Amino acid sequence: MDHERIAVLAHEKFPDRAKTALGVLRYGDQEVCAVLDRDSAGDRVADHVADVSDAPIVSSFAEAHDAAEGDLDALYIGIAPIGGGFDESWRADVEAAVEGGCDVVSGLHYFLNEDEDLAALAAEHGVDLIDVRRPDDDLSVATGASGDVDADVVLTVGTDCSVGKMTASLEIVAAARERGIDAAFVPTGQTGIMIAGWGNPIDRVVSDFTAGAVEEMLVAVGDDHDLLVVEGQGSIVHPAYSAVTCGILHGSMADGLVLCHAAGREVVHGYESFDLPPLADYVDLYEDLAAPVRETAVVAGALNTKDVSDDAAAAEAVTEFGDAVGVPAADPVRDGAERIVDGIVDAGVGGR
Amino acid sequence: MDHERIAVLAHEKFPDRAKTALGVLRYGDQEVCAVLDRDSAGDRVADHVADVSDAPIVSSFAEAHDAAEGDLDALYIGIAPIGGGFDESWRADVEAAVEGGCDVVSGLHYFLNEDEDLAALAAEHGVDLIDVRRPDDDLSVATGASGDVDADVVLTVGTDCSVGKMTASLEIVAAARERGIDAAFVPTGQTGIMIAGWGNPIDRVVSDFTAGAVEEMLVAVGDDHDLLVVEGQGSIVHPAYSAVTCGILHGSMADGLVLCHAAGREVVHGYESFDLPPLADYVDLYEDLAAPVRETAVVAGALNTKDVSDDAAAAEAVTEFGDAVGVPAADPVRDGAERIVDGIVDAGVGGR
Repeated sequence: MDHERIAVLAHEKFPDRAKTALGVLRYGDQEVCAVLDRDSAGDRVADHVADVSDAPIVSSFAEAHDAAEGDLDALYIGIAPIGGGFDESWRADVEAAVEGGCDVVSGLHYFLNEDEDLAALAAEHGVDLIDVRRPDDDLSVATGASGDVDADVVLTVGTDCSVGKMTASLEIVAAARERGIDAAFVPTGQTGIMIAGWGNPIDRVVSDFTAGAVEEMLVAVGDDHDLLVVEGQGSIVHPAYSAVTCGILHGSMADGLVLCHAAGREVVHGYESFDLPPLADYVDLYEDLAAPVRETAVVAGALNTKDVSDDAAAAEAVTEFGDAVGVPAADPVRDGAERIVDGIVDAGVGGR
Repeated sequence: MDHERIAVLAHEKFPDRAKTALGVLRYGDQEVCAVLDRDSAGDRVADHVADVSDAPIVSSFAEAHDAAEGDLDALYIGIAPIGGGFDESWRADVEAAVEGGCDVVSGLHYFLNEDEDLAALAAEHGVDLIDVRRPDDDLSVATGASGDVDADVVLTVGTDCSVGKMTASLEIVAAARERGIDAAFVPTGQTGIMIAGWGNPIDRVVSDFTAGAVEEMLVAVGDDHDLLVVEGQGSIVHPAYSAVTCGILHGSMADGLVLCHAAGREVVHGYESFDLPPLADYVDLYEDLAAPVRETAVVAGALNTKDVSDDAAAAEAVTEFGDAVGVPAADPVRDGAERIVDGIVDAGVGGR
């Protein structure tokens, strides 16, 4: 999956409910030439989001093609309705993209390749429908080979879902590269995979292969880099998703962990009858659970302060968080990830 | 899945390499009318295995049909080659069973329903091919509803794979019923499902649905019994399978845990470079990891002493194990599960 110039579909949801579109804009190597959102067509990305490359917002793929002033390689589906279904109001744009010679990349539960009409159209036009949420058929159980990769491995682990593990991972990679470390991002979820252009959707693999699907990625890229930053998922005490978290923890055999948390979060997101345990308990749980497979430690912390209104209060929250966990901490979006990389490097797991 | 009179296919592997056949013989409610093993045809089950109902061993389904002296309901595939493939030398027997009006039940990775010839033959004869390892399509994420079931829930947890969690679970149910407790077995693996006639194969579900697939079972039967004994899988520190274990731990929201271990086991089965941690560490890990979702405790222990030669040494091993874990313990096969049920009842999680 190697697309240079893309359009991103985000109808009626850009930017606040278009997590994938935002992720690709912020972190993808692809040039986003246009965003499709019929509700805000005529605006520009910069009218809504700071700190990302600007692009026009248009109402259809045809307009995106015109705005792009040059060929597009792909259309990315940048939104996901609850349930992960395909919204029929997108079909005309997807068909136009295929007819225009573009691949279509989707992280939906609904697989484009299983849509007979779209599959036939793609075959006719010689383009690929890429369902990033469909796992490879050749995944299998872990063998313990992650322990043998040359690179140092750092894993982001969370106190909950939706605390910013993907963002923290990407910011850590960026800050490490600034420092001259050959770092790479190892994606485990659909947005991360669309940003990185490769990866296994760990939450969709057969549960027996959870750790193995992580190992497969680390073995594939471990010799090419000095530091691998694995995108974590969920939380080890999540009522529904802890299996995924546990498989990534043991499958990655991480040398260091970065604990990610959202300021003010006290109960499990979407499962509000479950309280989050104290931060220090998470440190013990992750370290003690990892140890029989790989001795490791929480070496830094990432605090998501997007719901904290001003910078001073956010800085205070970060200080409190770092003190509670006992490691260097930062909000990787507000502050950058330099202090987090300090923690990683000081712990001797920074790739050299 | 409700079969009264069955034949079990175990060609060339009965009894020592026919774990599923043995499980069904030992614990299934079905009457096993014949075992198919062309290598020991002419013998009887009792020549090889004590303490189970006797049956003739025959070389083909036709002979099984004759030996059964009455209609058979189903043929169960009682063996699994490495990799879970279908051995073509079984096809004639499977076809004969279908032609004779029998369902065929299989726990293979190879799905009989995807074999076009067998699927067509089954349709023609109006029988079902039942692939117990194929998860239901309607499974989803956990909601936390396991915490609301009326029954007490006990989960067997292990120090490793292949330590006897299924056997311990079944023996606990049997011993609890002896005591007048309305107990039921909740299967999570293919052999358990073939024995019980229902259940979700947790190691084959989408990793995001691991806990949800357990919850779905507990909600389905929770009002019908006073004590549910959930079959655990793997171990929480297994390099490959811990995701499955963690999902079952949180998905079951168990009121009590029974720690299962194999006497003499010091390294992970099949992953010998990984040492097992001390027994007390397992107790802390399982309890601490469960607590944020459901406060629970290890209330009893099950030690598999099949590799211990004499009864005195086995008894000593059980005593040592119980002392190390700090709970009542027994080898449920050698001793019966009465002491384990004592631990469950004394902890107040015995269903009344």
